[in-house]
Amino acid sequence: MKVKEKYYRTIWPNADNTIVNIIDQTKLPHVFEIAEIRTLPQMIHAIKTMQVRGAPLIGAAAAYGMALATLHLDDLQEAAKLLIHSRPTALNLRWAVERMLHTLLPQTHANRNAAAWLEAARICDEDVQMNRQIGQHGLNVIQKVVALRKTSTAVVNILTHCNAGWLATVDVGTALAPIYAAHDAGLSVHVWVGETRPRNQGASLTAWELAQYGVPHTVVADNAIGHLMQVGAVDMVIVGADRVTALGDVCNKIGTYLRAIAAKDNHIPFYAAVPSPTIDWSMSDANHIEIEHRASEEVSHIQGLNAAGHLQHVAILPAGSPAFNPAFDVTPAHMVTGLMTEHGVYSPAELKQALLPKISL
Amino acid sequence: MKVKEKYYRTIWPNADNTIVNIIDQTKLPHVFEIAEIRTLPQMIHAIKTMQVRGAPLIGAAAAYGMALATLHLDDLQEAAKLLIHSRPTALNLRWAVERMLHTLLPQTHANRNAAAWLEAARICDEDVQMNRQIGQHGLNVIQKVVALRKTSTAVVNILTHCNAGWLATVDVGTALAPIYAAHDAGLSVHVWVGETRPRNQGASLTAWELAQYGVPHTVVADNAIGHLMQVGAVDMVIVGADRVTALGDVCNKIGTYLRAIAAKDNHIPFYAAVPSPTIDWSMSDANHIEIEHRASEEVSHIQGLNAAGHLQHVAILPAGSPAFNPAFDVTPAHMVTGLMTEHGVYSPAELKQALLPKISL
Repeated sequence: MKVKEKYYRTIWPNADNTIVNIIDQTKLPHVFEIAEIRTLPQMIHAIKTMQVRGAPLIGAAAAYGMALATLHLDDLQEAAKLLIHSRPTALNLRWAVERMLHTLLPQTHANRNAAAWLEAARICDEDVQMNRQIGQHGLNVIQKVVALRKTSTAVVNILTHCNAGWLATVDVGTALAPIYAAHDAGLSVHVWVGETRPRNQGASLTAWELAQYGVPHTVVADNAIGHLMQVGAVDMVIVGADRVTALGDVCNKIGTYLRAIAAKDNHIPFYAAVPSPTIDWSMSDANHIEIEHRASEEVSHIQGLNAAGHLQHVAILPAGSPAFNPAFDVTPAHMVTGLMTEHGVYSPAELKQALLPKISL
Repeated sequence: MKVKEKYYRTIWPNADNTIVNIIDQTKLPHVFEIAEIRTLPQMIHAIKTMQVRGAPLIGAAAAYGMALATLHLDDLQEAAKLLIHSRPTALNLRWAVERMLHTLLPQTHANRNAAAWLEAARICDEDVQMNRQIGQHGLNVIQKVVALRKTSTAVVNILTHCNAGWLATVDVGTALAPIYAAHDAGLSVHVWVGETRPRNQGASLTAWELAQYGVPHTVVADNAIGHLMQVGAVDMVIVGADRVTALGDVCNKIGTYLRAIAAKDNHIPFYAAVPSPTIDWSMSDANHIEIEHRASEEVSHIQGLNAAGHLQHVAILPAGSPAFNPAFDVTPAHMVTGLMTEHGVYSPAELKQALLPKISL
C-alpha cells in the first residue's frame, strides 16, 4: 500500500538480509515510523508489544524472527518455542514458525541462514497473494449483497472490526481486501470503523489506512454498532480472524462476537476473511482455544496526541479500580454467513469438505 | 452517599435558595469538585456538557433550573422549552420541567420563587425514595438469581452499563441501588463495569462510586462483555434507562442493546432499573424516541490524567477521519427480563396493567 505516495509492505528485510524493517504500529495514527529489528529477542518484543500485530503479519514477523535466529546461530527449537508463546491465540504465528522449522531443520547449519530468509520472503509473498484472492472472492460477495438489498442507495455500508487490513498483513489485508477491491472496481463503499477498545486498532489503524487508500469511512464507539444495524445503516459485516476451528467457529479480536449476534438479530450477513493458515484443522471445540489475557494497563490507560502535538499516555480509570483485559472472543459458526478464503467463500458447514482438499498442509 | 467520609447528594441548593451546587462529573474520577450554578443558562450548560448527567439527575437539575428561572424572573414557558431541548432523549427531564410548570403557573409571580425551590426539593426527595424502593425490589431479584443459579460460587457477578448509580440520581442510584442493597445485606457482590465509550461513564463514574462504597468491581472494555457472558462470568445484567415505552422497550446509553442480545444469547437475566418518571406512557413505538447525536469530539478525543498528574485532552483518531456519536439505543422489550420500579418488578408485558394504576401521573 502507498503511504504518502511511496509503496510499502508492512515488513521487509534490508538488502543483505541482516535487518528486518517493520512499521511501528504502536505509534500510529499519529506517527509513521519504521523500526529496525536485528535479533530474535527484538522480534519477540515487537510481537508482544504489538509493534507488529494482526494474525498474518505476526506469522510473517515470526518467520523473519526465525531468520534472525539463524543469523545469530540461536537454537532453532528454542527460538520456535519462544516465538509461538509470544502470543498464544493467533494460529498463523505457530503455522509460520512450524513451516520455518520444517524447512530449516533438514538443512546443514551453513545453509540455514540463506534458506531462512528465502522461506520467510516466500511466506510474505504467499500472504500477499492469498489476500489478493480473498479480495476478489470477497468482492463477489459485496456485489451480491448490493444486488440483493432492498434500499436503493448507491453506497454500500460495510462494518468491520479491529484492523484486518494492510497493517494486519504483509500487504492488502484480509477483511479490508474485499473493500479495497470494491473501491477499485468503482463501487461506492463506506466503512463503519468500530474503534476497537482497548487498543483502538480500528480508530488508530483501520481509519488511518482507509484514509491512505481514500476509502470513505466513519469511526464509531464499539457500543454504537448495534444501533447502526438497528437503523439500517449496515449492509454487511466483514471481520478478520485469529483462529478458525475446523467447524467454522471464528476466534477474533474481543467484541467480534457482539457484532455477530447483532448482525444475526438484524438479518445482516456476517463474513470473516480467513486465509487458510488461520484455520486450525486439528481443533473442533473452540473452548480449547487459549484466549490471551493482556495487561490491565491497556484498559486503564490510553495514548493520544495532546494539543501541543505530543504523544501522551493518560490514565482513564480511578486509581485502584482493577481492570480485566481478554483480547479475543469466539463467534459460534452458526452466526457466520461465510468464510472468505483464498480459494473461495464457504459456509462453516462446507468448510472442511470444500477447502481442505484444495490446500497443502 | 459518602465521599471521603462526608455525606453528599449529587445536587443541593445553598441555605438561602439562590445557588444550586452540583458535583462536576466531567472531572471525575480524577478530581472531585463542586460547581455552583447561579442562573438558568448555567444550568442548561451544565446539563448539555454533562457536568450533571443521568436521567433522574438531569430531571432534578432541570427542576432547579426552573427555580433559578423564577429567581431571575425569566419567562417560565421559555425556560421550560430551553431545558427540555437541552437533552432530547431522557424523559425525566421533560417530566420534571412539566411538573414544575404545573406547580408554578397557577401561582402569583410573588409566590413562584418559594414554590419552585420547594417543588424542586420535593422532586429530589422523591427521587431518593424511589431509588431506595428500587433497591429493595431489586435486592429480591438478586436473591432469587443467586438461589436459582447452577454454580456454587459465593460471589454474584452483576454486569452494569454506563452509570446508573448515585451519580446519575440525587442519591442511591437506580441500577446500582439493588447492588448497594445487596452489598449492605451481606451478599458477596462483584460488579463488571463496562467502560462505556465514548464518554466512559462506567470507567470514570461507576468504578469510582463503587470504590467509594466499597463494592468489589472490575472494569472491562465494552467489547469484552459478550465474552464474559460466554465464559459464565455474569449472573445477571442491571442497567438504567433514559426512557421506557409503554410496551417496555428500553432506551438507554448506547451499547445497552448489545448487552441485551448477548444476555439473551447466553440465557442471562437482563433487568432495567426504572423509576416511573422514566416511563413514557404516551409512546408505544420506540422508533419515535429522538436519539441524541452528540459531538464527534467525544469519540475522537479523550480525557485522562498524565504521569505528572495533569488532566489532558488527547486526540485518539487520525486527523481527518470523521466520527459519528449516537448517544442512546433501544433494547426491544422481548429482550428485557424485568423492569425494576419503585412499586415492584414487572415484565414488559405486565408493565402497563400492573404499574400504571399505582402511580399518579
